Amino acid sequence: MYSLATVQKYCKSTKGLTEFSSRYVSKTATKTVSEFEYDAPSMKTAVPGPKSQELLRQLGEIQNVGAIHFFCNYEESRGNYLVDVDGNRMLDVYTQISSIPIGYNHPALIKVMTNPNNVSAFVNRPALGILPPENFPEKLFESLLSIAPSGMNRVQTMACGSCSNENAFKSMFIWYRNKERGYASPSEQEVGTCMINQSPGCPDLSILSFMGAFHGRTMGCLATTHSKAIHKLDIPSFDWPIAPFPKLQYPLEEFVRENAQEEARCLEEVEDLIVKWRQKGKPVAGIVIEPIQAEGGDNHASPDFFIKLRNIARKHGCAFHVDEVQTGGGTTGKFWAHEHWGLDDPADIVSFSKKLLTGGYYHRDELQPDKPYRIFNTWMGDPSKNLFLSEVLNVIRRENLLEEVTRSGKALLQGLYSLQTQYPHILSRARGQGTFCAIDACSDATRDSIMLKARNKGLFMGSCGEKTIRFRPALVFKEYHVHQLLNILNDILAEHK
Amino acid sequence: MYSLATVQKYCKSTKGLTEFSSRYVSKTATKTVSEFEYDAPSMKTAVPGPKSQELLRQLGEIQNVGAIHFFCNYEESRGNYLVDVDGNRMLDVYTQISSIPIGYNHPALIKVMTNPNNVSAFVNRPALGILPPENFPEKLFESLLSIAPSGMNRVQTMACGSCSNENAFKSMFIWYRNKERGYASPSEQEVGTCMINQSPGCPDLSILSFMGAFHGRTMGCLATTHSKAIHKLDIPSFDWPIAPFPKLQYPLEEFVRENAQEEARCLEEVEDLIVKWRQKGKPVAGIVIEPIQAEGGDNHASPDFFIKLRNIARKHGCAFHVDEVQTGGGTTGKFWAHEHWGLDDPADIVSFSKKLLTGGYYHRDELQPDKPYRIFNTWMGDPSKNLFLSEVLNVIRRENLLEEVTRSGKALLQGLYSLQTQYPHILSRARGQGTFCAIDACSDATRDSIMLKARNKGLFMGSCGEKTIRFRPALVFKEYHVHQLLNILNDILAEHK
Repeated sequence: MYSLATVQKYCKSTKGLTEFSSRYVSKTATKTVSEFEYDAPSMKTAVPGPKSQELLRQLGEIQNVGAIHFFCNYEESRGNYLVDVDGNRMLDVYTQISSIPIGYNHPALIKVMTNPNNVSAFVNRPALGILPPENFPEKLFESLLSIAPSGMNRVQTMACGSCSNENAFKSMFIWYRNKERGYASPSEQEVGTCMINQSPGCPDLSILSFMGAFHGRTMGCLATTHSKAIHKLDIPSFDWPIAPFPKLQYPLEEFVRENAQEEARCLEEVEDLIVKWRQKGKPVAGIVIEPIQAEGGDNHASPDFFIKLRNIARKHGCAFHVDEVQTGGGTTGKFWAHEHWGLDDPADIVSFSKKLLTGGYYHRDELQPDKPYRIFNTWMGDPSKNLFLSEVLNVIRRENLLEEVTRSGKALLQGLYSLQTQYPHILSRARGQGTFCAIDACSDATRDSIMLKARNKGLFMGSCGEKTIRFRPALVFKEYHVHQLLNILNDILAEHK
Repeated sequence: MYSLATVQKYCKSTKGLTEFSSRYVSKTATKTVSEFEYDAPSMKTAVPGPKSQELLRQLGEIQNVGAIHFFCNYEESRGNYLVDVDGNRMLDVYTQISSIPIGYNHPALIKVMTNPNNVSAFVNRPALGILPPENFPEKLFESLLSIAPSGMNRVQTMACGSCSNENAFKSMFIWYRNKERGYASPSEQEVGTCMINQSPGCPDLSILSFMGAFHGRTMGCLATTHSKAIHKLDIPSFDWPIAPFPKLQYPLEEFVRENAQEEARCLEEVEDLIVKWRQKGKPVAGIVIEPIQAEGGDNHASPDFFIKLRNIARKHGCAFHVDEVQTGGGTTGKFWAHEHWGLDDPADIVSFSKKLLTGGYYHRDELQPDKPYRIFNTWMGDPSKNLFLSEVLNVIRRENLLEEVTRSGKALLQGLYSLQTQYPHILSRARGQGTFCAIDACSDATRDSIMLKARNKGLFMGSCGEKTIRFRPALVFKEYHVHQLLNILNDILAEHK
């Protein structure tokens, strides 16, 4: 998180700009924009336009299309600009739910595709757990292991975020039971009862999660997800403990004492729940948490909170799982958001997906399953995604994109502070780390209305929580784009007055 | 399933062949083998060879490598032949756990990759549920919907088999609860309790599965999987009913009366369990079953069994979910194995993955979730896999591969019958549909020994159940390849005497 002083310094200069001209002007625009990219949004119709509407009708015969915004022309999309089928070109700060790392049609990724040496990786998807390709260890070393969080030297790939968390949970359960039985072989009774879903073979263990969390939607993950009722309604679940996530006041630097109290309250509740669930006969095998609750409303907590939580996990013998599915990949200015905490005692598991293009999780040595086939499925990921990831990492390094993210993030947050100062009746609680920023509207209706107006002006944003706008641009999002974003928002808010 | 008469007819002629020469000779070999393919296995080292062993050591620093057979050279693999990093070329009848539809490096798939129009689909993976590409409806119609099982006109793609089944289960739960509440809006209590994993919002509903079943390894799927203890040990589960799957005697045609009795016993137990779980307050929302239990030992049941099971589901208001993750895609001689049953009342859900290259499930209209975001995740599949699938379907049609599968399957099953007649102390219970065949060894040790010897002679097979060898060749597996397979097996068995 930036210091308040830094942010205020930026705010001041920007505020001056907006107050006088209501427009941000980027003198360096042409230099900072990649050659292959467009230079601005360009709108031809309201969104969704007529072509999108016709396609919605067609797809509606096959699927529920209620969540679809519009149909895209991915061929014509470039960098930060998403083009739809009606020819509208939008500045995209949602990037496929935060899963496009370096923008659309990046030339480096096209090169990966057109390299004849890579053809085989795409057309022959292996069962990685039994028959990996020759270059699999090498590709893991040069991609995922080259960015491994500190303390982690093992990684398991998976196809998506939910599978990553499901298997991370399984690893924690296996680790916990192996500890409990002193690493002895399972009893005959355990082997027999597990086949019919009964204890002790299928033990009554639990994962502690946090209110407002999102860890995925398969049934294990869903038992730890508590962001929106529509995700969970009607689906059977597990009786697992759910702790309060700190409800902090922003900017964090202005409410240090109040926030510390709130975090202490939540940590106390965590310990109470661990004790209570142990007494209930459903011990907590692991604690799972996001560095920023990214679906539940962009809820932040301090490094101190996370360090203390990690210590609680250690004290009670629970594994500590950091879910970086949305926060990972560089968008907070470090490759992993939890690197901002300065943990002395690393996490046990760090899961990822989205911007990493492949799902998976890192883990400490002791979290590795003791036997083959305990963590297993047919594909176990997809080596063609690892090829893309290697190249994404090359681009991030070559173009110093983490520094860019830090720079753009500062400009974005200062701009949001400025907007909420100008429009205090509409906006509040601007917050962020890198470009992983958010701001709240005064109501969900206002939030939704701002988002629709922005879309029609060429700015595509996402929402989260009850009335939050979340910003999830790609790592190639420059100050030039920040200014476009702020200008569009400013126009909408000015009309809203 | 072939009639016994047909099979015996084939067996007779083949048996003659083997009895006199111990070798199958394919006169049409050169014609039936695709131009791009090799003509036979070719072995240079024992498997795993030295290069594989070195790579195992490297990967062992990152992952548990206990399940890895060897490392592959996918570039050099062709058609039915898998080449390893030590230059060994094996006839592959396991095909990446049954997930390679038309062989390695099929020229048609390479063309998909090298077509410049397709580049964008690979480098820009969309969030399909909110921003699908322009051609998404068209590609669904020309790929998945063109092969939809009868009664199914809706399809949802997913990234893998486990996610497909997890979401199919969720669809059944949502459908069941909507029925129960008369399609009214959920109560405030439901909305509130679901957020904390409690009933009535997270209701105590169940899925009925069968002993020996395999439906995946994420926690919802795993509660319906009962094939091997190692998959389930130490993972918390749900108290869901598990019915016995018929243990039939083979060939099915010789044990019609005994098998019918066994199937009746199992169906009675299914009804008892449905009643019992309703009384327990955990009503059965859905029944999930594989057409052939493909991990649990290639256990078959008759069309009559499945038709009656479907009727039981209908009678008790449970959804009926056919899991075709392993059986689907043409390998039984029909595109979907359950098409062999002749159901008048179609299933409610049919899930798929593996040979379809994308995961997903078909469903009836009423199984579609009533609201967006109830069945949802970031990627919801991968359009680049749909491109490959479209081309796979073109190849299947152009080359009449379902007919080939039927022809090769007859030759394979007749050959297995012949082998078990020759080696009754080693082999028994040959069974199959299309090329989806299996045979049992007298013990797991014998089975494993046969498989290792076969591998060193250039035949790579899979196992399932306790002592079963399963055959899962690609759809381009011809009679010529059947003969290679049988010759290798024959040699091993002859030595084994």
